Amino acid sequence: MKIGILGGGQLARMLALAGHPLGLQCVFLEPAAEACAAAVGRLLHASFKSEDALATLAAEVEVVTTEVEHVPLAALEFLARQRPVLPGSRAIALAQDRLLEKNLFRRLQLPTARFVAVDSLEDLISAIETTGLPAILKTRHMGYDGKGQVVLRDAGDAADAWRAVGGVPCLLEAMVPFDREVSVIAVRSRAGECRFWSLTENRHDKGILSVSRVLLQDPLQALAEDYCRRLLETLDYVGVLALELFQVGDSLLANEYAPRVHNSGHWTIEGAVTSQFENHLRAVAGLPLGATAARGPAAMVNFVGQTPAPREVLAVTGAHLHLYGKRPAPGRKLGHVTLCASSSALLEPGLEILLQLAQRREEEHVLD
Amino acid sequence: MKIGILGGGQLARMLALAGHPLGLQCVFLEPAAEACAAAVGRLLHASFKSEDALATLAAEVEVVTTEVEHVPLAALEFLARQRPVLPGSRAIALAQDRLLEKNLFRRLQLPTARFVAVDSLEDLISAIETTGLPAILKTRHMGYDGKGQVVLRDAGDAADAWRAVGGVPCLLEAMVPFDREVSVIAVRSRAGECRFWSLTENRHDKGILSVSRVLLQDPLQALAEDYCRRLLETLDYVGVLALELFQVGDSLLANEYAPRVHNSGHWTIEGAVTSQFENHLRAVAGLPLGATAARGPAAMVNFVGQTPAPREVLAVTGAHLHLYGKRPAPGRKLGHVTLCASSSALLEPGLEILLQLAQRREEEHVLD
Repeated sequence: MKIGILGGGQLARMLALAGHPLGLQCVFLEPAAEACAAAVGRLLHASFKSEDALATLAAEVEVVTTEVEHVPLAALEFLARQRPVLPGSRAIALAQDRLLEKNLFRRLQLPTARFVAVDSLEDLISAIETTGLPAILKTRHMGYDGKGQVVLRDAGDAADAWRAVGGVPCLLEAMVPFDREVSVIAVRSRAGECRFWSLTENRHDKGILSVSRVLLQDPLQALAEDYCRRLLETLDYVGVLALELFQVGDSLLANEYAPRVHNSGHWTIEGAVTSQFENHLRAVAGLPLGATAARGPAAMVNFVGQTPAPREVLAVTGAHLHLYGKRPAPGRKLGHVTLCASSSALLEPGLEILLQLAQRREEEHVLD
Repeated sequence: MKIGILGGGQLARMLALAGHPLGLQCVFLEPAAEACAAAVGRLLHASFKSEDALATLAAEVEVVTTEVEHVPLAALEFLARQRPVLPGSRAIALAQDRLLEKNLFRRLQLPTARFVAVDSLEDLISAIETTGLPAILKTRHMGYDGKGQVVLRDAGDAADAWRAVGGVPCLLEAMVPFDREVSVIAVRSRAGECRFWSLTENRHDKGILSVSRVLLQDPLQALAEDYCRRLLETLDYVGVLALELFQVGDSLLANEYAPRVHNSGHWTIEGAVTSQFENHLRAVAGLPLGATAARGPAAMVNFVGQTPAPREVLAVTGAHLHLYGKRPAPGRKLGHVTLCASSSALLEPGLEILLQLAQRREEEHVLD
């Protein structure tokens, strides 16, 4: 079976690598000149707006999925007239618009930080009354990896913030003094079966995910699954979805979801019985889902901007290296390493080394 | 780094899949029209005897390895003048000739079944005196998957057996009433470090590996490692090697070795911390070796001649499917499934289902 993927980056690449052993080949449609997935599948290099390219993709594959949420909805709708598009365009449309997404959370009774829609500077000034300060002004569209976000600490910041986001439709959100950021990765099959991986705790650096640690048997696992299940079911979702949450004491606030495989689920390749990549393919291909149980303690470190020497990473016992074959550039995700160990205590020394390797190289890159 | 591989079958394919995350791309030289590895790397379709093709391969890669032992030694020697060839041609030359291989075992004081070189019918008749009966007449060259072997049960079988093997140089071996067949997969780095995976017990069907079960903490592990280490060291071996042994009581008899990744090590993809494929690449690329510890109970079932429907295999909890993308044909290895479980007791019911699936389809194929 052939599977079409909108996008040809590292997520598409890891999907394709998971697909080959299952007899699933991936065909990527990627507008950018560079597409690191091309090493492991067929690449169609064209715009998402090219109906010729979309028609070619649809003709070559049996089902279409995406590795990016920022795809034109028209492309998904065009494809959906010829092939199943999973997850469907509604799940992607809502994830593209922070206001619709937050309204959905509210409707599903998922707690969130206080938020107000902002369409003008006047809106922003009055929104501060609702959210309090500090607050974050976020563009409704095209936000990811911390892009399109401005922090307001003082009411006097409003005009500057409004200018900084370019005066586009926004959301003002109360800045939550959270204990930690966590995410739950879930998969739902065509038949409606839901499975969840262990929660991960995520740390960001300059808005980009830096480290994920698997939380085994976390007391909030059931609550996170409950929230995520509401989302999967209301969207009649098929495939992998990531729900990002803020933990505040014993409660979880829904922050955003990604309608795709997610960076905070990369640890599942070695750390779980079945990876997010394999289960996403199984779901969209209509195959039975694999077990999502964690195999033990694990953590993942991203390589952003630059990658350490493979020999240094691989010298760490239990380290699993994943390079994406991308050209280095500041702020670019170039690879990751997953560290697995038989106990949490055994995980820490190796993790410390890997964090230093990831960090050192970033600094060296700045000096270059 | 690019790695050249002589051969483009399933072993090359699984090597290439393991290579991408490490930043290693594989280039395959394959004489056959079909090369299932081509889906995940660059294929050079040419004879191993083509110096043009060998020169192209050498020019494109930094190191060369093989997925098959039956390659012309001249090809290895040609390549070795331009690039490191790992493992080296001596390890492959000895594996190509059952007599040289068995003499090496003898020199290293690895016990074997009694054996005698046979170059004529007269040799064969007198060899029976040494080996006793039953015995197996094996061609010295080009034997694998039970090919080139004839069993002698009676002295009167000699002439027929000699005719059946085509009168080529042979070895007569005593047929050992072994308790079971086991293999140990090992890897040796460029620096001489050796690591070993857990022993596996192997069952064959019509000479082709059918099932491998991982033997966790087997009492014979240390002995098998000792034998295997002698072999690795005397050959100054780099890469993965499989040593097949017969267990008779508390002793192990060396049967043969394969100078490459091996079917009885496929379980290491999910069943061990680092797979045989990844460690072979790490070794030949001069990278540190990964841990070889088993993650828990595991078994592997081959799909020979025909493959079950993926949905039936994937419905078994803990089953990991590996299809090779090859055209089905009787006796052809088309894929395998590795089953992992948290306890041996939990492994058995799933294994039973998978064995039935593998078997049922073979029978259906015969009925086709």
